Amino acid sequence: MGFTDVRATNLAVVLRHLRTNGPSSRAAIAASTGLNKATVSSLTSDLIDHRLLRETGSSGNRIGRPGTAVALDGSAYAAIGLQVAADRLTALAVDFAGEQVLLWHRALAAEGGRATGEIIALAQRTATRVRQQGRTVLGLTLAVPGLVDEDGTVRLSPALGWSDVDLRGLVASSLRQPGLVVTAANQAGLAAIAERRAENMIFVTGTAGIEAGLIVDGKLLHGARGFTGQIGRFALGPAGSPTLHDLAGIEPLVRRALPGFDPDSLTDLSPAVEQVIVQARAGDAAVLTALRDTGRHLGQGLAILSNLTDPSVIVLGDHYAALAEWIIPAANPELAGHLLAPGGAELVASELGLHAAALGGAISHLERVDSGRSMPITA
Amino acid sequence: MGFTDVRATNLAVVLRHLRTNGPSSRAAIAASTGLNKATVSSLTSDLIDHRLLRETGSSGNRIGRPGTAVALDGSAYAAIGLQVAADRLTALAVDFAGEQVLLWHRALAAEGGRATGEIIALAQRTATRVRQQGRTVLGLTLAVPGLVDEDGTVRLSPALGWSDVDLRGLVASSLRQPGLVVTAANQAGLAAIAERRAENMIFVTGTAGIEAGLIVDGKLLHGARGFTGQIGRFALGPAGSPTLHDLAGIEPLVRRALPGFDPDSLTDLSPAVEQVIVQARAGDAAVLTALRDTGRHLGQGLAILSNLTDPSVIVLGDHYAALAEWIIPAANPELAGHLLAPGGAELVASELGLHAAALGGAISHLERVDSGRSMPITA
Repeated sequence: MGFTDVRATNLAVVLRHLRTNGPSSRAAIAASTGLNKATVSSLTSDLIDHRLLRETGSSGNRIGRPGTAVALDGSAYAAIGLQVAADRLTALAVDFAGEQVLLWHRALAAEGGRATGEIIALAQRTATRVRQQGRTVLGLTLAVPGLVDEDGTVRLSPALGWSDVDLRGLVASSLRQPGLVVTAANQAGLAAIAERRAENMIFVTGTAGIEAGLIVDGKLLHGARGFTGQIGRFALGPAGSPTLHDLAGIEPLVRRALPGFDPDSLTDLSPAVEQVIVQARAGDAAVLTALRDTGRHLGQGLAILSNLTDPSVIVLGDHYAALAEWIIPAANPELAGHLLAPGGAELVASELGLHAAALGGAISHLERVDSGRSMPITA
Repeated sequence: MGFTDVRATNLAVVLRHLRTNGPSSRAAIAASTGLNKATVSSLTSDLIDHRLLRETGSSGNRIGRPGTAVALDGSAYAAIGLQVAADRLTALAVDFAGEQVLLWHRALAAEGGRATGEIIALAQRTATRVRQQGRTVLGLTLAVPGLVDEDGTVRLSPALGWSDVDLRGLVASSLRQPGLVVTAANQAGLAAIAERRAENMIFVTGTAGIEAGLIVDGKLLHGARGFTGQIGRFALGPAGSPTLHDLAGIEPLVRRALPGFDPDSLTDLSPAVEQVIVQARAGDAAVLTALRDTGRHLGQGLAILSNLTDPSVIVLGDHYAALAEWIIPAANPELAGHLLAPGGAELVASELGLHAAALGGAISHLERVDSGRSMPITA
């Protein structure tokens, strides 16, 4: 960072304006941000020199004077999210303009000792590919289910069968690019960043476990140690009482819906969820009952979340999203029935498939630049 | 406010330093805040002129040079909290130095139509008494159980039997002092402000209902509409399933512990709680069982809170605090057993009796001044 604090703050103001509003003329940036036109010209000139912005013929929302607008430049930088699930790895990269430039899936057996080696190898291959595209990697974030501490160590991940794995350290030491920021964080929080659409909203994961990423009062809820959102453990009763995961989890759903399904095959839930969808579409009564029960219990769990944090939106992710046409109608009456405050959260399905957390991990590095915390400019 | 923004910000810096550190010399304030000594002298001079600070002979933690220290001045201003419960009203005032200068309790039948009249009358008497003490009232906050919107209207309070009562408006229009700020807010959040002792902590009320005030990442959790902390509604099961209030509430505890107690007398829970304590001390087996069951269920509910928000401290308030010697040992194993993250929140009893929310309501007005949002100086 070769700029003063004020300069860096103003560069960030311009970047955030373009991130939110799309291509804009310098005059529009000045009018909207309150910076004067000469300052905006100087700032955009610097950002173009450093390949964070580019000139564009179209301002996106006005006619005439082509060539006067600027836009985020995706050609020079990219950021990577690498999502670790019990049954698969997903690598995703976005360029600085936010366009997805890479999406890879790999099967994984997370509980084996070889899992970390496969994660490191995929991280290296992804970074190499992004560089081959001509882009510098701004950062890489590992998205993990369970408890991840502030150093990026996975303290406890029941879904992965891990405890005390220094995943961030292992990956960071294998990627020897100066200035590349490597972080690790809970997947649900990262998915909430990718799905952010309100100042108070919740993303609910539906894979091998249930976790929640909470954006409260505009910020991702961190808590004392970062160990938030463990809603799968919700229970009211003595030890051994059914938890929210037992009542509304995806794997318990599959076991109830498809009693003949080979349990060993459930390391990868996707084929089973596909089968549930096929049989639900065919009107299979047992499958529809299992879906309805799952939706009802999920609604009860989401009512706990809503009574506590008063979100305006709850986004159902992962396999819940694929099953949303059955889950949401069953969940909504339970959610409404258990809420003290009328007119609570709207329940919607994620459209980000199984890689919302990978996207959130990548986006988090763009947000670091946009906020001025980490400007990839060495002037 | 007759000052520039920078001046107001610096005045607030000095006030916050003294609020945190107690009486200090001007040199110590300059060293700690980074303001230069001439600026500190000018700021303290203004604050003394406006009776927010006073000279004091003792700096509190150093010997010699008497007369060089300044301290918060409690003589000119005070703030009021008025806590509305189902069975009583509590009025509390603190001076600007944070010393309690008034504490009144009044019996109340909240469900009667006369309740708001009694609240207004108590607010007026309290303000009058504070003025008779020679103090200007900075503000008055009404602390209410249930859902209170941002305009200070009580949308729904099951504990009071109220819906859509514009309590703030009724009280504000009856207190005709220019500049007096009147607000209304949920009691649990205000109690959390009074008990604030960590960046992530929770206050749990135990009166006619159970509510939580959550301080997360240093700020009181507000949510989309301010309708947070409704933990008494926690349930996992279809409508009609027992809620956390059914399982761990104070009134259900009293009904189980004292089956012969006249239910009509439970409008005021304090005598019943006293009787529970007497019989528990005498070793009454049924009472001890009821206390243990209540503590266990409360621990399960607090585990839900902890798994979600990862607090470092949970403060049990009101009647839970009076019963803490039985409740906490029963709750702790359940809390630990249901937590995914080892080493979770410490469970402690409030020492603020039944008026933590009144205190928090009063303190909130001192914080408005300390933060520079509302400087009672007309220069």
